[in-house]
Amino acid sequence: MRKVSRRKIRLSFRFLSTVKMSGKIVLSADLGGTNLRTAIVSQDGEILYRTQRETPRGADASAIVAALIEAANDCFRAVKIGGEIAAFAAAVPATVNADAGIVLKAPNLPQLDDFNICATLEKKFGLPCLLENDANAAAIGENWLGASRTIGNSIFVTLGTGVGGGIILGGKILRGADGTAGEIGHLAVEPFGAPCGCGSRGCVEQYASASALVRMARELGAQFTESDLSKIENPTALEIYQSGAAGDALAREAFRRQGFYLGIALAGLINALNPEMIVIGGGAADGWDLFAPAMLGEINKRAYRAAVERAKIVRARLGDDAGILGAARLAFD
Amino acid sequence: MRKVSRRKIRLSFRFLSTVKMSGKIVLSADLGGTNLRTAIVSQDGEILYRTQRETPRGADASAIVAALIEAANDCFRAVKIGGEIAAFAAAVPATVNADAGIVLKAPNLPQLDDFNICATLEKKFGLPCLLENDANAAAIGENWLGASRTIGNSIFVTLGTGVGGGIILGGKILRGADGTAGEIGHLAVEPFGAPCGCGSRGCVEQYASASALVRMARELGAQFTESDLSKIENPTALEIYQSGAAGDALAREAFRRQGFYLGIALAGLINALNPEMIVIGGGAADGWDLFAPAMLGEINKRAYRAAVERAKIVRARLGDDAGILGAARLAFD
Repeated sequence: MRKVSRRKIRLSFRFLSTVKMSGKIVLSADLGGTNLRTAIVSQDGEILYRTQRETPRGADASAIVAALIEAANDCFRAVKIGGEIAAFAAAVPATVNADAGIVLKAPNLPQLDDFNICATLEKKFGLPCLLENDANAAAIGENWLGASRTIGNSIFVTLGTGVGGGIILGGKILRGADGTAGEIGHLAVEPFGAPCGCGSRGCVEQYASASALVRMARELGAQFTESDLSKIENPTALEIYQSGAAGDALAREAFRRQGFYLGIALAGLINALNPEMIVIGGGAADGWDLFAPAMLGEINKRAYRAAVERAKIVRARLGDDAGILGAARLAFD
Repeated sequence: MRKVSRRKIRLSFRFLSTVKMSGKIVLSADLGGTNLRTAIVSQDGEILYRTQRETPRGADASAIVAALIEAANDCFRAVKIGGEIAAFAAAVPATVNADAGIVLKAPNLPQLDDFNICATLEKKFGLPCLLENDANAAAIGENWLGASRTIGNSIFVTLGTGVGGGIILGGKILRGADGTAGEIGHLAVEPFGAPCGCGSRGCVEQYASASALVRMARELGAQFTESDLSKIENPTALEIYQSGAAGDALAREAFRRQGFYLGIALAGLINALNPEMIVIGGGAADGWDLFAPAMLGEINKRAYRAAVERAKIVRARLGDDAGILGAARLAFD
């Protein structure tokens, strides 16, 4: 970005911060293990402009920073139509120190471990920068504009390559003492179960994520030799879903297990937190029809009756936009 | 209680509520499955007077109400020395609707299910009445005057006949949507484990409570035929502890299992809530030296490093007084 436009944005922000807030827009990024999605978001949650590129690989953070800057510049060019940008908000697949804007640990993007993203971006753009864990951001997004809108106490669960979560209590995201709260993918549901990337074993992530579904389908192959799915050597989550939808017994058992273990974890959270709603999102939530019966069955069997009756279990509504919108919301707050 | 003194107390409260709070005292009761403990507590947490009696049995709530009234009258007689009582606070072994003062479900005192204790006591004494779950009350007590004093985010776990808990976030007890939050004894740690009174199976209560210790010791008898403990037909928790302290292998294995499963549940809570402290109380916490190594080992292995480094795991400090003090604190608040 050229010096001139950097200065312009900084000055614009200083001006905007003293005027009526209704015209504010923010630049929001959702950095995933695969894709970097960036958007300009208005104060009422409209996505005015969006851009997407692949998340670059690399030994250190510089390639990711370069991609963030490039994406931001795309957005800045678009801003000329839309208004002036007040802040840069980024959701990252990592535990973060939100106050300091520092990534703590990013299991799928380890080049970001301990990296101060916000200092780098603030220096580059002269804009205030906010950092949030991606699942927390998605939880905030769903609470702002999606499934848990108007609900004070809810839990967001995202079923993707891993299982993430965000806990909203009294309308606010629960960060905990160090910003690592909400890691509900790492509740153990099988004490001696599958080893997990986090160092533990039997975490619900190992049973309820898309990658877990693939592993479980593979493990079940020997028991379901009649299954067409068992003939596919390395089935994808989508193939498992398609087989399940067509009635394949192996696929259905894999989804039943996904629902069973997810239900155990959610029942525990319902007993511990007595939420009004649990919102389930992420790509692997697309198997809802196949895993939900087992999930709901376990929740009903295992959690306290009053708490079960209270907790609505619903699908997320914002899809891939939840993280971008949630990060933007944080910036507006 | 005679009409005259009832009126006197009501009038006194009205007067007190408008004057300086430093002289306030409250009547606080901790109703357990076995004992009813009642005390007069000063605003700085001093127990000025206490009385204890057996919790009466009976098909309906009337015997318990009579015992509460009798205990309160003991305290009222003592008040003549100490001051005027501003409120009646009761901790009960039940999920409660704290706002309405109604017991929801009391597994060990089912005669209280759905009973409006506060309406009854307010009518009897003309005092404002507060109701709280016993583990929540103990969590508040420890946070006021005990182990987690000055700590904003902590989890209290009580290991007794069952396993209870109370979650304190930002200095406030987490009640959840219906007041049932904090039931961390019913996080499942063995998906196909021992059946639990709550209707689920494999709850941590079935591995970490005093009664679980007794069951596990009995189950282990066949594997540890050399153990002196295996020769006792129905060992008590105390006998198991004494055997363990003397080096008995069966007892030590029972405590290792207690610690192992408790550690799994606490690791999950550390990942989900990122607390600053976990406080462990209740009678079965007396086996600390025997179960803590396995508990801490699992926590270290299973929870996120930053969160584990943050969370101090300590023993409770207030013993049996935690509930009475916590209920009193609620009344002062």
